[in-house]
Amino acid sequence: MIMASTVNPPRGMRDFLPAEKTHRERVLGVIRGSYRAHGFDEIETPVMEDSSRLHAGLGGDNEKLAFAVMKRGLTADKLQAASEALELADLGLRFDLTVPLARFYATHRAELPKVFRAIQIAPVWRAERPQKGRYRQFVQCDIDIMGEPGASAEIELITATAATLDALGIEGCTIRINDRRLLTSALTVLGFPTKEHESVLITVDKLDKLGADGVVAELRERAFPDGPVAALAEFLTRPQPEIAPEFSADAIRDTLPAGVNEAVISEIATIGHAVDAGRGTSGALIEFDPWLVRGMGYYTGAIFEVAHPSLGYSLGGGGRYDGMIGRFLGSDVPAVGFSLGFERLVDLVDLDDAGSDGQLALVYDADVDPATLVRLQAELIRDGKRVRLELRPRKLPQLLDQLSESGFTSFATVRADTDSLASLEFKPLGGQ
Amino acid sequence: MIMASTVNPPRGMRDFLPAEKTHRERVLGVIRGSYRAHGFDEIETPVMEDSSRLHAGLGGDNEKLAFAVMKRGLTADKLQAASEALELADLGLRFDLTVPLARFYATHRAELPKVFRAIQIAPVWRAERPQKGRYRQFVQCDIDIMGEPGASAEIELITATAATLDALGIEGCTIRINDRRLLTSALTVLGFPTKEHESVLITVDKLDKLGADGVVAELRERAFPDGPVAALAEFLTRPQPEIAPEFSADAIRDTLPAGVNEAVISEIATIGHAVDAGRGTSGALIEFDPWLVRGMGYYTGAIFEVAHPSLGYSLGGGGRYDGMIGRFLGSDVPAVGFSLGFERLVDLVDLDDAGSDGQLALVYDADVDPATLVRLQAELIRDGKRVRLELRPRKLPQLLDQLSESGFTSFATVRADTDSLASLEFKPLGGQ
Repeated sequence: MIMASTVNPPRGMRDFLPAEKTHRERVLGVIRGSYRAHGFDEIETPVMEDSSRLHAGLGGDNEKLAFAVMKRGLTADKLQAASEALELADLGLRFDLTVPLARFYATHRAELPKVFRAIQIAPVWRAERPQKGRYRQFVQCDIDIMGEPGASAEIELITATAATLDALGIEGCTIRINDRRLLTSALTVLGFPTKEHESVLITVDKLDKLGADGVVAELRERAFPDGPVAALAEFLTRPQPEIAPEFSADAIRDTLPAGVNEAVISEIATIGHAVDAGRGTSGALIEFDPWLVRGMGYYTGAIFEVAHPSLGYSLGGGGRYDGMIGRFLGSDVPAVGFSLGFERLVDLVDLDDAGSDGQLALVYDADVDPATLVRLQAELIRDGKRVRLELRPRKLPQLLDQLSESGFTSFATVRADTDSLASLEFKPLGGQ
Repeated sequence: MIMASTVNPPRGMRDFLPAEKTHRERVLGVIRGSYRAHGFDEIETPVMEDSSRLHAGLGGDNEKLAFAVMKRGLTADKLQAASEALELADLGLRFDLTVPLARFYATHRAELPKVFRAIQIAPVWRAERPQKGRYRQFVQCDIDIMGEPGASAEIELITATAATLDALGIEGCTIRINDRRLLTSALTVLGFPTKEHESVLITVDKLDKLGADGVVAELRERAFPDGPVAALAEFLTRPQPEIAPEFSADAIRDTLPAGVNEAVISEIATIGHAVDAGRGTSGALIEFDPWLVRGMGYYTGAIFEVAHPSLGYSLGGGGRYDGMIGRFLGSDVPAVGFSLGFERLVDLVDLDDAGSDGQLALVYDADVDPATLVRLQAELIRDGKRVRLELRPRKLPQLLDQLSESGFTSFATVRADTDSLASLEFKPLGGQ
């Protein structure tokens, strides 16, 4: 016998029982439906990719967290000849949906529309240190637009994401937007040499965690030059003006040092105005955040992040990554994506999962003809009902409680002489 | 740059483009809906299980096909100390949904109803030699009932499976049923010693492939005693009488050597009668097959298999495996399951995937205010439409063709002065 103490899912991974699985599937259904309604098309890739592709430098720190899948048929000789673990792996589990999408696009480009709008709703795996709210298998909901270099792609992605958050009934979300080129331009104007930008941004990225004073202190500690740090400090501590829903270029410019890239300011104004003025101000709003950084190194333009007041972390994010597909295809293809973290969302969503009142139980005596049960069940299902058959137990109230907890709304008793739906008498379950 | 020639999904695994993904999701939706309607509850387990659990002898030959996931942080020392590959793996990808279900049930038994009806619709992985119709990642649709020792569980499973095949519009299916105990009893009566049963059944299992003469020839070749082989031959070549939908014990007994286990005959008669007489004879039918074997060693009672006239292989199968959960839990729990092979089913299903006529495209000029597009799209979506935004290209007919192929049914042009839905004029797409 396998020891009972080992009977758990693997570390950091979860089982979903019926109530939670039903809730998850309903939330996924709303997300899928909303993305589809916005004109996106769903695709699917295998959970594994070639190991060399996962470790090609496109996944940042996540590459180190990839689960490696061993080659088959490895003999002891081959094991002992290996100088590092990855030599023994030919495949790995994807750690995000972006690397597989870039590979997918490169594989199928000839069969796809010129501007391709992809939905991917699927699990990814990272061998992270398990901690509260972090799992080793988790679902991401990504939309991406490939082949469109202009801001209309950002507008579509942010609109679809905002509408999806609204459809889920998650209130109070803001979508913060910035642009990598604006950050670079601002740092240059403030006097940071180009070679220090990446390094400065690592600290600026901690603004939410450390606050403006903390960021400035860390920049000083890391011995960046005093002048630029002092100039940056002034902007970091400045209160953010309300610029939604108008999102004028003037309002954006006012938050930034003089002389930053005007073309980028104008693009952000276009994106922000289209989303906020187009959607109205009743649901999720887009806001400009001049110091939003986003960690991944592959972003080349607009970046965005979903914030929710109840959470210390983002619900999702994304940005433009025009260089990545070229790594697979050999020629650059503009691309921009927005990912929602499903595991963070799903707990905020309070959909009515009970379904209709069409969930019935037939509680039957042991001497009922099974063919009659099959027939009655089939007739009720044809009528649109969900029907569970339960043998009457010695303790009926326990069964009825459990049926009610499982979402069943009424039950009827079937006896040996019951032979038609008309003779069933349904009584409500639950509600004491 | 990563070489373009490597841009494919891993060997034996597939990408799904939008049309196929849409079809797959619709078919999965029908299956899930039908199983739920029959009172089953969906659950989910992680794609990985502990390696020791996957290699505990419950998966038969499939264990050898498991993809192994390497331990993290393996140093060269550890690699070189390994004498076999599995020492370096702590996890593996599941090769079926039965082993994870048994583990799930053992983990959560206290939270589950006494009789637990599980749905699992999920991918599994096997490192098989890729060949036509065989994939290394494929979806299985399993329903299982745990905690019910009696034939009512078999009846519910077969009824739900038959109704699901009907709901998918797959015509001509038969569900063949037999019982492991009946096979054993028949072989004993025919004169085969118990210790040879397993071995004889390996050859009888090839009946579909070799025919009765082929099986008898192989049994002779393998030097089983002449008397029992001749006695068996008589039954293998006997024409099968029609026993559905009445499924009387007498009719079943007539197909078998005299003296086989009467209790099992009576149980099969109960199951067959309930399903065929209860459902009527208009959809998938259940048939008795006294020489159905099913490969897996863990079956302890009833076994079943779905046959379709257009296919040389089964669409699914299952059976009772009362011993397996005890391997994890320490105390036996009766269990029976029925699995449909999704990849085999999905190609037989011809659902209308086009959806409603509510798939619209807005083809806009470059000078249209993006906020207007966002607003018009939102209004149409609120109206229940699916709306794709497309910038008017130089070659409009090409775009319209592609939209039509993608399932969009009409389009309207948006110009700079368009400001309300009322000013849009929708024209049909496609249909030449």
